[in-house]
Amino acid sequence: MSDLVITSPANARVKALSALRRRRVREAEGVTLVEGYDELRLAVEAGVRPRQLFTCPELMHDPDAQRGLVDEVVALGAEGVRLSRPVFEKVAYREGPDGFLAVVPGVDRELAALELPARPLLLLAEGVEKPGNLGAMLRTAEAAGVDAVIAVDPQTDWGNPNVVRASKGTVFAVPVASATLADTLAWLAEHEVQLVATTPDTTTAHTAVDLTGGVGIAVGTEKHGLTSGLLEAADARVRIPMHGKVNSLNVATSAAIMLYEAERQRTSEGGSRTPAAD
Amino acid sequence: MSDLVITSPANARVKALSALRRRRVREAEGVTLVEGYDELRLAVEAGVRPRQLFTCPELMHDPDAQRGLVDEVVALGAEGVRLSRPVFEKVAYREGPDGFLAVVPGVDRELAALELPARPLLLLAEGVEKPGNLGAMLRTAEAAGVDAVIAVDPQTDWGNPNVVRASKGTVFAVPVASATLADTLAWLAEHEVQLVATTPDTTTAHTAVDLTGGVGIAVGTEKHGLTSGLLEAADARVRIPMHGKVNSLNVATSAAIMLYEAERQRTSEGGSRTPAAD
Repeated sequence: MSDLVITSPANARVKALSALRRRRVREAEGVTLVEGYDELRLAVEAGVRPRQLFTCPELMHDPDAQRGLVDEVVALGAEGVRLSRPVFEKVAYREGPDGFLAVVPGVDRELAALELPARPLLLLAEGVEKPGNLGAMLRTAEAAGVDAVIAVDPQTDWGNPNVVRASKGTVFAVPVASATLADTLAWLAEHEVQLVATTPDTTTAHTAVDLTGGVGIAVGTEKHGLTSGLLEAADARVRIPMHGKVNSLNVATSAAIMLYEAERQRTSEGGSRTPAAD
Repeated sequence: MSDLVITSPANARVKALSALRRRRVREAEGVTLVEGYDELRLAVEAGVRPRQLFTCPELMHDPDAQRGLVDEVVALGAEGVRLSRPVFEKVAYREGPDGFLAVVPGVDRELAALELPARPLLLLAEGVEKPGNLGAMLRTAEAAGVDAVIAVDPQTDWGNPNVVRASKGTVFAVPVASATLADTLAWLAEHEVQLVATTPDTTTAHTAVDLTGGVGIAVGTEKHGLTSGLLEAADARVRIPMHGKVNSLNVATSAAIMLYEAERQRTSEGGSRTPAAD
């Protein structure tokens, strides 16, 4: 850990850190932020190599126990920077910061940079607005064994600190990309991936379609669903049966139901995935 | 709509309304609160008959369009009370209130008061702490056709305004109850309902167990899972396969995956439920 302690908000490092609040700056510099001890631990466990670690021992919940992570991150090559409490509180994103804020390499890839296995399972989230929903979908996608998650014409970015937080570190464990619908459709066709659209406007149940090949499962916004452009381009349109009166599922819940139906089909046919045993 | 407009926070109706912030008062009076135009509309559509409707036209997003709901609720028998803006903001729960706050009958039932069909599908949420998770589970349970949701030794109550909000009105559409574990186990046995526990500590996949009979699917807290008392009492223990490294699913996501696996099994065997068609 460096002995550098910054107490001035006008310090160049602090100014550069504050500039990362802006999506454009994050994208230009190819970095994102991870805030919080638990989130940083998950990111490091997922293989992330932070570039800078800003800490404030006065804000840590348990400075003695948490020092180990500071040492580990610095040993991995990060610059360690201590901030005074007023400065840390100024740069922190969340209410009640816990003294950990790291600058890490961005996770967003170009479609062309995604490496796909044979018969990939992909999740496509079109137009998602809420960072919390995108993060929640990633968490489920990671558990279900998804090979990549693609944000199609997204309203938010993968580097949004609230996506990182809601994903519980999985944003660093699952390959992610952002792309336009046109680029996504071309890329799916090139890789012979079948596009399966989730929509209430069909009579085909989600369990009635073969999801064992190369498939991309698409979910849209809660308010408007998938765009007509995506729906028309889809190889199959399926619906999740709804038996109630209110007839609405959270978009991350819909994604979970679809992905685990794919998981069920892909494991029960004796595929290459790990069987459901510990 | 009554012409009564309250401008004093010391008014007896306002004081009684403020007292409903306390769970004990809500439970003693057998009422809960619904805040917000969208939530109130969903509740009314689900058959709720509000007792009182507090409004503040100055805070409404679209007073002309929203007046219809006020008239409808008053026609259903509610007392309509207008509050001045400062008083409404004082009694509102959320940031940025929209001028609608209703006192409605409580939803929490005794186990004995639940009416079950043959072969019921139940969701049991043990020890859930976050109102948002309980609300999210209700929303999915309603869509999946669950017959009742039971909060076992809950840390929150069904009348919590944040449960009501996260449930998107479904808290009024699905029968709910709260009970101790001991009472729940006795009641399940009495009704010949098989208890299926979701836990990482088993090798049985969640798809490998028959969920077509009378079943209660139990999920625990994200941090600690189900209690040993419940796990030991369960007729079956199943796990949701996790292929990633992070190995954690949100509790509401786990519930969704389990409930839709039950839904799949129960509809594909030609049961009594509505087929997956519109």
